Amino acid sequence: MRELLVVGMGPGHPDQITVQAVQALNRADVFFRMDKGDAKSGLNAARDEILRRHVTRPTYRVVDIPEPPRDRSPSLNDGGYLGAVRDWHEARSELIARAIETELGQDGVGAFLVWGDPSVYDSMLRVVDRVLALGTVCFDYAVIPGVTSVQALAAAHRIPLNRTGEPIHITPARKIAGGLPAGLDSAVVMLDRGFTAAGFDEPGLSVYWGAYLSTPDEILISGPLADVAAQITQTRARLRERHGWIMDTYLLRRDAKPATGGHAKPATGGHAKPATGDRETTG
Amino acid sequence: MRELLVVGMGPGHPDQITVQAVQALNRADVFFRMDKGDAKSGLNAARDEILRRHVTRPTYRVVDIPEPPRDRSPSLNDGGYLGAVRDWHEARSELIARAIETELGQDGVGAFLVWGDPSVYDSMLRVVDRVLALGTVCFDYAVIPGVTSVQALAAAHRIPLNRTGEPIHITPARKIAGGLPAGLDSAVVMLDRGFTAAGFDEPGLSVYWGAYLSTPDEILISGPLADVAAQITQTRARLRERHGWIMDTYLLRRDAKPATGGHAKPATGGHAKPATGDRETTG
Repeated sequence: MRELLVVGMGPGHPDQITVQAVQALNRADVFFRMDKGDAKSGLNAARDEILRRHVTRPTYRVVDIPEPPRDRSPSLNDGGYLGAVRDWHEARSELIARAIETELGQDGVGAFLVWGDPSVYDSMLRVVDRVLALGTVCFDYAVIPGVTSVQALAAAHRIPLNRTGEPIHITPARKIAGGLPAGLDSAVVMLDRGFTAAGFDEPGLSVYWGAYLSTPDEILISGPLADVAAQITQTRARLRERHGWIMDTYLLRRDAKPATGGHAKPATGGHAKPATGDRETTG
Repeated sequence: MRELLVVGMGPGHPDQITVQAVQALNRADVFFRMDKGDAKSGLNAARDEILRRHVTRPTYRVVDIPEPPRDRSPSLNDGGYLGAVRDWHEARSELIARAIETELGQDGVGAFLVWGDPSVYDSMLRVVDRVLALGTVCFDYAVIPGVTSVQALAAAHRIPLNRTGEPIHITPARKIAGGLPAGLDSAVVMLDRGFTAAGFDEPGLSVYWGAYLSTPDEILISGPLADVAAQITQTRARLRERHGWIMDTYLLRRDAKPATGGHAKPATGGHAKPATGDRETTG
């Protein structure tokens, strides 16, 4: 039976991959790649470096799967847009099924190196479902998790993603275009084509922003949103211009109201019941 | 200058730690431990195994920091409760400051191995802030991220945490006691002392549950909530009885409405605009 490994490669640094993932990579006969702007963004170079650094088995192959052409015509109405996307996914699934069939022996192991974690804002698991649904090639598959850019952001700023007892909310930028939703004390914003939060006029928000996280180009800015919004917007535009691309993410947080006996530090404290809500085993 | 490393150790398997974390551990002279039920839950055994397997430097020490006694008297009123928690945190900070001062040389490197990721539902970063705020000992510190049990859950079930273009919402159980909030299509539930979702009567919910993730005792149950809620409740109670403790988490998801031309598979599909919302570099 063929086997496919969908492996989280972490957010950028070649050593920010788990030992479990390294072991999985060393089982792979073939590494498949699909280019989603990955050459331009240096993601393929990061993949190459991971293989060079961590794969010790003497032979493996890298197989590039071409991306089918995509109709991005803006004049399509919504039904046409959805149809075009569907056709594109179908075409891509067929190309992948064919690559698995032709490049992988009957007991071969193939791997996809996915940026970050395959379960977090990545399409590969949906693609695998589609490929299996075609019914043209049969394989088992496993998922190996990886650290995400969201975690790299928090680690670089040395902050918890959650306030004590509060949710962690990670959202595409278009979902918070109107502001940080009521009832949430913080949110991590992904997939922002600009810096959406610059338009928020709610007072008492702080931001922790980072771009090119876990790479030599990593840059961090944090502070009260009103104070640093312009700096982030300008920095982002300048770096995107210089590199030709940008990957960034940020945490927005409502400043804590000082509770009785609580700590009023905006970044990490404020809630005065810190014993519940952090990890404790039950029982 | 003393240095403190706050290192994510992953959710349980000793190889589910990053290479970067392994490198950090090999810089540490002293590993500090605080017992938060960690002996009982096998977490200290997992730490020992990580050190045994991954630390190659010849000498290092493990230093246990005692937990200060905690007043859990239920008769305390709210102000008394908060005061007791504050006193307890203060006492703990002082014990940690003293351990760093006495156990670590002037250029020594100390490390805390934190379950999962230090930025996700863990108190260590807040503790470090408190220790520094005491002003009795000076040190620099760094955070090394790790894979969380939430990611292990998704990987084990081979599912994305987000629907295409939708948020990832991770919440303590008490925040969803009334049901899955409107406007969210899914939520990951942590820190549940039972299986809160068993009480939800909303139709069309699916659940992906896992306990002891990434350990030899890992167990998974998934399906329509109405069909598997009783099974999860009973399994959870039985395993908690057998092991003396349990760590579990689950993803709740509203089943997708079949969109025109979309896929109606409840677990992963449904939304018919899969091109936006997954990772793409901009620029």
